[in-house]
Amino acid sequence: LSPHETSKNVSKNVRIVLIEPRHPGNIGAVARAMKTMCLAKLYLVRPVEFPSFDAERRAVGALDTLNAASVVERLEDAIGDCRLVIGTTARARAHPHPVLSARSCAEKLAREANDRAPAAVLFGPERTGLSNRDMDACTFQLTIPTNPEFASLNLASAVQLLSYEIFLASGQAPAPDPRSVEYPNQSDMEFFYKHLEKTLVSRNFLDEARREVTVSKMRRLFGRARPRIGELKLLHSLVKLMERDGR
Amino acid sequence: LSPHETSKNVSKNVRIVLIEPRHPGNIGAVARAMKTMCLAKLYLVRPVEFPSFDAERRAVGALDTLNAASVVERLEDAIGDCRLVIGTTARARAHPHPVLSARSCAEKLAREANDRAPAAVLFGPERTGLSNRDMDACTFQLTIPTNPEFASLNLASAVQLLSYEIFLASGQAPAPDPRSVEYPNQSDMEFFYKHLEKTLVSRNFLDEARREVTVSKMRRLFGRARPRIGELKLLHSLVKLMERDGR
Repeated sequence: LSPHETSKNVSKNVRIVLIEPRHPGNIGAVARAMKTMCLAKLYLVRPVEFPSFDAERRAVGALDTLNAASVVERLEDAIGDCRLVIGTTARARAHPHPVLSARSCAEKLAREANDRAPAAVLFGPERTGLSNRDMDACTFQLTIPTNPEFASLNLASAVQLLSYEIFLASGQAPAPDPRSVEYPNQSDMEFFYKHLEKTLVSRNFLDEARREVTVSKMRRLFGRARPRIGELKLLHSLVKLMERDGR
Repeated sequence: LSPHETSKNVSKNVRIVLIEPRHPGNIGAVARAMKTMCLAKLYLVRPVEFPSFDAERRAVGALDTLNAASVVERLEDAIGDCRLVIGTTARARAHPHPVLSARSCAEKLAREANDRAPAAVLFGPERTGLSNRDMDACTFQLTIPTNPEFASLNLASAVQLLSYEIFLASGQAPAPDPRSVEYPNQSDMEFFYKHLEKTLVSRNFLDEARREVTVSKMRRLFGRARPRIGELKLLHSLVKLMERDGR
């Protein structure tokens, strides 16, 4: 599989399972959070209220993800065919499951989830979290790192953070700077530095003893700014102003 | 500075600046998102409605962060003393700022923010994002990686993701498994394996030719499960059942 197909596979085969979500607004916010990170498989186990206007309102542009949600009565209907099931808990519990951070959980999902091996991450009801019985269906426990004195992550925020880590771990994130910037070449830069130096000499700005040091400082300053082609023209114009001012 | 003081310093010296936030609910959700990740410095530049009941409702347990928010009229009142200012944009813009991902932005903040050098990350109004004028106050641009076809991150979600990365980058996250688990020692495990093997032999379960292979399989299986002390007792009891059954 190409890397692109692999990452599509991960997105397609990781399910977010909400168990008895109480506030329909949260379901909508979860759908939106998932879609921002290319996840689409949402399962709702016995939602208190669904479908709902509040869910649609909070989903904003992710109505497709929301409307495609599978509503099921029993947890096993959501995860029966999954080969990796992970339960989310606000704090590490006494449960005998190995604890994963959001990042290590996402890396595990990216490695293991595929068409023959779907995976699921469970989120419990807003106030109480997953029951011990639901945790028994899991082989790992996800605990998102938070402030030890305030671990109160909103349900949609928890899904958002995990989805983001899955998006990064599956290699789908575009390069951080996709714009094509046109930089001048090194000769253009040298031409500018010479122009600047000549002008400064003509205005008696450069003390002969410190000339080299000062020119070197200027080079470092303008080099760090890494001017674009248009910006270099602007700098030439400024230098020309210095020339004229003295005449 | 100790690592603990360093990370406290980061939390104290990174400001989240919301410019003209339109929905007070979002302000509350931002306060909550910040507090879950140990951030506390919230600045509101010309909020459309604040204070507000909706903001308090969404802040849940982060009323302290919300009530400590600084409300200012001009952006410069929020960032005048900052030595690093980063503007958040949904997509990389034509702006001549280097683009940072959430992770690299957080690493930069963790390296640079301290008592003598506060830093700020700006978030624009919900619909329009930061104006070009606000971007002019920035030296870097933060673009959180998202689905290229649906970059619609909620304001609080964007703050949540960045705050999470700052929390991780500043080394404040606790180890993923802080529970103290008591494992049996290697002699205890050996004692169990011998018990199991002896029992299987007594029940004629082990074919002599394959005895070694089968025992080795069992060792690998139970080794992988890594039983706790109490669980090892349970396994001994199961083996005892196998013994008795044959008498």
